Amino acid sequence: MVLEICAVGGYSEVGKNMTAVRYNNEVIILDMGLFLPKIISYEEEEGSREGLTKDDMIEIGAVPDISVIESWRMHVKAIVTTHCHLDHIGAMPYLASYYDAPIIGTPYTIEVLRRILKDEKIKLKNPLKVMTANSKIKLSENFTLEFINATHSTLQVVMIALHTPEGVVLYCNDYKFDNHPTLGKKPNYDRLKKLGVTGSVKVLIADALYSSKAMKTPSERVAREMLKDVLLGVKNENSAIIVTTFASHIARLQSILDMGTKLGRKVVFLGRSLEKYISAAEALNLISFSKKSEVIGYANRVKRKLKEINKNKKKYLVVCTGNQAEPGSILRKMADSTMPFKFEEGDHVIFSCKTIPAPINMANRAMLEEKLVRKGCRLFKDIHVSGHGAKEDHRDLIELVRPKHIIPSHGSLEQTTPMSELASSMGYVLGQNIHLLRDGQLLELD
Amino acid sequence: MVLEICAVGGYSEVGKNMTAVRYNNEVIILDMGLFLPKIISYEEEEGSREGLTKDDMIEIGAVPDISVIESWRMHVKAIVTTHCHLDHIGAMPYLASYYDAPIIGTPYTIEVLRRILKDEKIKLKNPLKVMTANSKIKLSENFTLEFINATHSTLQVVMIALHTPEGVVLYCNDYKFDNHPTLGKKPNYDRLKKLGVTGSVKVLIADALYSSKAMKTPSERVAREMLKDVLLGVKNENSAIIVTTFASHIARLQSILDMGTKLGRKVVFLGRSLEKYISAAEALNLISFSKKSEVIGYANRVKRKLKEINKNKKKYLVVCTGNQAEPGSILRKMADSTMPFKFEEGDHVIFSCKTIPAPINMANRAMLEEKLVRKGCRLFKDIHVSGHGAKEDHRDLIELVRPKHIIPSHGSLEQTTPMSELASSMGYVLGQNIHLLRDGQLLELD
Amino acid sequence: MVLEICAVGGYSEVGKNMTAVRYNNEVIILDMGLFLPKIISYEEEEGSREGLTKDDMIEIGAVPDISVIESWRMHVKAIVTTHCHLDHIGAMPYLASYYDAPIIGTPYTIEVLRRILKDEKIKLKNPLKVMTANSKIKLSENFTLEFINATHSTLQVVMIALHTPEGVVLYCNDYKFDNHPTLGKKPNYDRLKKLGVTGSVKVLIADALYSSKAMKTPSERVAREMLKDVLLGVKNENSAIIVTTFASHIARLQSILDMGTKLGRKVVFLGRSLEKYISAAEALNLISFSKKSEVIGYANRVKRKLKEINKNKKKYLVVCTGNQAEPGSILRKMADSTMPFKFEEGDHVIFSCKTIPAPINMANRAMLEEKLVRKGCRLFKDIHVSGHGAKEDHRDLIELVRPKHIIPSHGSLEQTTPMSELASSMGYVLGQNIHLLRDGQLLELD
Amino acid sequence: MVLEICAVGGYSEVGKNMTAVRYNNEVIILDMGLFLPKIISYEEEEGSREGLTKDDMIEIGAVPDISVIESWRMHVKAIVTTHCHLDHIGAMPYLASYYDAPIIGTPYTIEVLRRILKDEKIKLKNPLKVMTANSKIKLSENFTLEFINATHSTLQVVMIALHTPEGVVLYCNDYKFDNHPTLGKKPNYDRLKKLGVTGSVKVLIADALYSSKAMKTPSERVAREMLKDVLLGVKNENSAIIVTTFASHIARLQSILDMGTKLGRKVVFLGRSLEKYISAAEALNLISFSKKSEVIGYANRVKRKLKEINKNKKKYLVVCTGNQAEPGSILRKMADSTMPFKFEEGDHVIFSCKTIPAPINMANRAMLEEKLVRKGCRLFKDIHVSGHGAKEDHRDLIELVRPKHIIPSHGSLEQTTPMSELASSMGYVLGQNIHLLRDGQLLELD
Repeated sequence: MVLEICAVGGYSEVGKNMTAVRYNNEVIILDMGLFLPKIISYEEEEGSREGLTKDDMIEIGAVPDISVIESWRMHVKAIVTTHCHLDHIGAMPYLASYYDAPIIGTPYTIEVLRRILKDEKIKLKNPLKVMTANSKIKLSENFTLEFINATHSTLQVVMIALHTPEGVVLYCNDYKFDNHPTLGKKPNYDRLKKLGVTGSVKVLIADALYSSKAMKTPSERVAREMLKDVLLGVKNENSAIIVTTFASHIARLQSILDMGTKLGRKVVFLGRSLEKYISAAEALNLISFSKKSEVIGYANRVKRKLKEINKNKKKYLVVCTGNQAEPGSILRKMADSTMPFKFEEGDHVIFSCKTIPAPINMANRAMLEEKLVRKGCRLFKDIHVSGHGAKEDHRDLIELVRPKHIIPSHGSLEQTTPMSELASSMGYVLGQNIHLLRDGQLLELD
Repeated sequence: MVLEICAVGGYSEVGKNMTAVRYNNEVIILDMGLFLPKIISYEEEEGSREGLTKDDMIEIGAVPDISVIESWRMHVKAIVTTHCHLDHIGAMPYLASYYDAPIIGTPYTIEVLRRILKDEKIKLKNPLKVMTANSKIKLSENFTLEFINATHSTLQVVMIALHTPEGVVLYCNDYKFDNHPTLGKKPNYDRLKKLGVTGSVKVLIADALYSSKAMKTPSERVAREMLKDVLLGVKNENSAIIVTTFASHIARLQSILDMGTKLGRKVVFLGRSLEKYISAAEALNLISFSKKSEVIGYANRVKRKLKEINKNKKKYLVVCTGNQAEPGSILRKMADSTMPFKFEEGDHVIFSCKTIPAPINMANRAMLEEKLVRKGCRLFKDIHVSGHGAKEDHRDLIELVRPKHIIPSHGSLEQTTPMSELASSMGYVLGQNIHLLRDGQLLELD
Repeated sequence: MVLEICAVGGYSEVGKNMTAVRYNNEVIILDMGLFLPKIISYEEEEGSREGLTKDDMIEIGAVPDISVIESWRMHVKAIVTTHCHLDHIGAMPYLASYYDAPIIGTPYTIEVLRRILKDEKIKLKNPLKVMTANSKIKLSENFTLEFINATHSTLQVVMIALHTPEGVVLYCNDYKFDNHPTLGKKPNYDRLKKLGVTGSVKVLIADALYSSKAMKTPSERVAREMLKDVLLGVKNENSAIIVTTFASHIARLQSILDMGTKLGRKVVFLGRSLEKYISAAEALNLISFSKKSEVIGYANRVKRKLKEINKNKKKYLVVCTGNQAEPGSILRKMADSTMPFKFEEGDHVIFSCKTIPAPINMANRAMLEEKLVRKGCRLFKDIHVSGHGAKEDHRDLIELVRPKHIIPSHGSLEQTTPMSELASSMGYVLGQNIHLLRDGQLLELD
Repeated sequence: MVLEICAVGGYSEVGKNMTAVRYNNEVIILDMGLFLPKIISYEEEEGSREGLTKDDMIEIGAVPDISVIESWRMHVKAIVTTHCHLDHIGAMPYLASYYDAPIIGTPYTIEVLRRILKDEKIKLKNPLKVMTANSKIKLSENFTLEFINATHSTLQVVMIALHTPEGVVLYCNDYKFDNHPTLGKKPNYDRLKKLGVTGSVKVLIADALYSSKAMKTPSERVAREMLKDVLLGVKNENSAIIVTTFASHIARLQSILDMGTKLGRKVVFLGRSLEKYISAAEALNLISFSKKSEVIGYANRVKRKLKEINKNKKKYLVVCTGNQAEPGSILRKMADSTMPFKFEEGDHVIFSCKTIPAPINMANRAMLEEKLVRKGCRLFKDIHVSGHGAKEDHRDLIELVRPKHIIPSHGSLEQTTPMSELASSMGYVLGQNIHLLRDGQLLELD
């Protein structure tokens, strides 16, 4: 029997990840993500995405075009996802209801999804099911689902091992190999190794995003040390300290909280998305920020707090949204002086992130930085390491699991061809057991 | 009376640093460095620099052109240096004898200088004097010399505070502010602050090399964490591990030794310059590598050792010269298979350095990397942080010492103008109290 | 007696050029320009600049801060400008009335200024006087004004030779040396040479914008050839052809018109600023576009015309505003489908310009290009050569006129230091006869 | 019956192009090129490539690895090539004799090959046959060969249309679409169009080198205009003028000769490879340089000539080898002062080429330029347009010939994937009718 893999989304762009696996009239969907740039462009021109239907969203390219698996619709047994980032779960509010199947993720992933649905006032018919890392469950006659613990840049990230009669489909989007994570456990190398030794991996679908970088992606521990250096190694006793980072990066937020505490400052997290990801983690007892800090999501309360902070800057360390200078983010409003906070000569602004290299982000960031510098701020940028593995992570993964086939994913040819080159150097052959797919393409194995 | 400052070298290029300070018929020389690219180009074309005289060396641009201070010759009271790098002390073998004055440096600096002189079979007439960080000595009627502890990328680096009747000349070439050094002490902020509070700094001469970078240079602790990640976080139990870095970077070597020990491997340092800098540090009891590792300088012994290592690669971690792929370095010879060592698929080569961005270095490194990759090596590059401060280090320094005048140094206008911009943003004015000098120019203060 | 030169604007940024020259209680102002990025940022946030006063404009950094020459106010004898670009004349509507002095420029420059004033409904008290290239006039007791024909990227550009008792102030902002101009005459080398031979140039103030580029800026003839290649050398008989370029670049527009005619297409110029610059040139009989083409400025007529063109695309060649993808420009509206024009697969869009490298421009252009590509357009970009001289132009200028002093202008240190390096290599000395000024600084000569 | 295409070389690197086409026990070989970087590296380390056998050359990667078509050896009916560049014909001296088949090329290509063979003292058993552009010949039972006139950067370049029972294999390596060539004829669009209209092209193998560049490659006319600008538009009456360019680029050499004549200078071509390509063209009466200029190949005569030129520089325009600063080239020797020529302040050196972006070339060029600048030369660089088409050339080609299949060639995935993207945007599908091959891979069509 034939194993079919459909590259629904994320194979012609970096975003809207979605892959469908079919065997003998049973289908499993892996991820269902948003393509954020299309949303942002749309909102900039139209004001809001409210009222957009599933078909509108497909039309503007914001979610995967599921018409390519229309004939599979009735056979979908489950929608499974690896972690809570929007390019993996963000299309669920628009597309999941189209399938009569449960959504399965780790507890944190599902908790975040719940909050997104609540925020957007969307009710899905799909049951939401949680499953922990390093566990297994039979999904249907032909499919058994296994979650393998991985490391990335948010909590409870897994690799998906989908067991089929034809072997395992190993779906590794997104991951890096971090042996010194600052929160959570190391990747489950033993399980990966066992899959490799038994020769059971039929096909590896892997995060090629940074496969062109001839390096190993550094551990989150390195980012923590960079943060420490900038927060505890620069004269800042008389300055405001503002830090911005990715809201879902709980380990990073923990490091910032730890440093702030060491500095004897009160740490305050400001912004709706920060509140969302933090409260989800607290609800599951994964962290306890509230005891040592304040977490404020609502705009009015943020305003009131900033007014208070403004009177006594040295006492606080502010963590806020705005790492990409997004319109509506707290840091952007502060820079535009539409918040009751006044920057002064020598205030510190720390970007614990990288600018996502889309032109609109780069322009937004450049303009934000210029405003901050004009106000006399000292900027500390790129205090960050990525959550995506690079060439040497991928080499280790391939060697560990020894797949029969490799499908580079998470990007267009620009991202996927370097992974193909890597695999070639390890003995695989393009067109034979390396497969470069594009959105909408179908691959049949055997 | 007038304080005169002559920019002898290092103000029109990155290299051959040398500054002379004159007050009332007394002169102090600060640094006397080599411009390495000129040496390398010369050696590549002519084979060797042996037999080159002082005037030849000036002619080819390899050492500062001291003719601009010819009339000051008889008044030189001392030649003082901040640390042992060749762009600061490397011209001494050629130029120092021309002056009837002692050479003064920290113990490690002088120890290294002694070994260089011995290696090159040069005898200087100048007395070599040591002085420790955070101490002071009267040099002449008008000059008192003070060493202030600093952090950089080798041992016992100081800032020089030269006290004159017109105030202090503070010479800060090279430094960064590292609050978490892995070897040696933090910068002496208290002393700098006191100089600032008392308003005694007449002029600051400061390392502008990276003043265009809008950041604080990370602590050496960050490099240590990066090394740890690459050495303890990647599958390497069956691979050779070769690390190359700057030979004088003792703190980095210490970190590598520590990690090697943790891996249960025997650490072996190979190469003449590694042996020179390590043995100098051991002679002063600053480190004790010999107990835990082997340090081998002579070519024949290096060869013999590599033969031995080749039989049992998994037992060793090799640290060797060749971070810039210099001709004659151990790593280059290994890659060219002129050493009894055979790289195998999966061997690790770690570059704990950055490529110095001269075209010849870049070509050498690119060719070396290609050979290593062809042999199946896995490369880990840029496992490094710089020893030179960046914009935010310099801002802190200027704020601490509040100089009346600023002379950006350690480079041409490309390097010095960003420092001028920084100082402008802090209230200084170009042409008034910021002075952009070029090699050979003289500045009179008051 | 002392010659004083005040760097009022354009010495700390690329824009708002303004220099004041004083001798014995007489002052001449050279240029009075806008800094466009500040206007654009302001308009983006506030909607419009209407109602902004002179002081507001200074406050937001959009025009030169003339407070630095407040004490010179009553002594201003003339405001002179080299050409009609906004960074040279755009501040006149806001600042000129503050001085009791005429504005002097070439006929085309004054004609354009008149139209700007009319558009913005501003009446200046200053008399507007025209003077042709290669003529001379006595302005006051100490100053005689001479215009020397130059080449740049619009019509009737001159270098200003301001004769004073201390020698000539030669002001060369903006220029390149084009020996094969496609419209207008070659630079007046003979006059420059004569100034050099007689040793009369006291100080040269020169356009340093591209002095870092180790080249000669190519002739406009090269751009014409590039245009020809793209318009007459690509299959386009069934496609719409849209070209966008700088509205004031009449020579370029002429080339496009010529090619369009050769293609047998009707050429149509669309957009307010195109209409302004073209009609000014026609009023002076410098060109006669109207005979062979249509020039349409008003929005409603543009719309009607596009509707017509849309029905029969192959018959037309459209030249329109929007080369920087500015909001409100015709090309941007066309891409946003707010114009009655529908792009089809294979339509040609030619950018005969370069993107001005400010982040907002780059983002705007990137987004515009993406939209056009999505609609199936074929893009032809950078069909352009600059109007600003580069290193080898400047070397020729300096050698021709042999000035006693050099002041690099038209930019911040990033632009001016390479000119300083060039002058250094020709024997000048920084701080002695090369002067790096910043906005607001005053230089006294002798 | 099946058409087989083997990607022998040039599909995993830019160089050593070679493709083999098989139908029913008949094989045609297209191109047989060198990979120059491997030769250069080898020669730098070993001194010379003399004595290297076919197998050595394959081993070091300098020529295609023909073992992949070993079983086809006896079936080869012809070795055909498109033009005389070494990456297309340079492996013939090493590999052609291995096949019992004639070599077929245009007259100029064959003439150049003859001279190479004579230079290297190699005798091939293969008959050398000439065939003109836009002609056709039956090669064997299944294959008919057609040459279609194309434009590139040397003389008599063709596209190969190989007619088979399964349709035409159209081989377009290398080409650009130049509608205004300065020497030779325009591409034969009519023939291409006819192939398209009749739907006869089974597969297009096309030069993907610059398919990532969103432009049309400019016409050679543009390069001529750039040259004219630099030679006739800069003050140079008292300077030496040295021009370097690619030796086989006869049209460029013609332009230089024309400009030199216009300047009233005696043009002298110096260097062995210049002499080779020029004399080959003269032998075929394609040009007549010798009448108006001197062409000198032998080292001793070059030396003598330079001595003469050195005495009276203003009278000459020197064209010499060394555009990549190759060791042994005339320009490099001049810069190293090992030629009897002394550069003086203000001498012009014009690089009518681009630096091929391999690290060793970049280093060589950087060092050469530095030497020339130190000697006071004025450099004019990148006076050049490429001979390889870009994205918009390829779009036109695909639209013209409407192939059933597309194989991007002339490079590795970095080069070939953008061509794949272009084809995708035109409706082709990767893996279906777009085929990304790597060296050694075989493709079967139907």
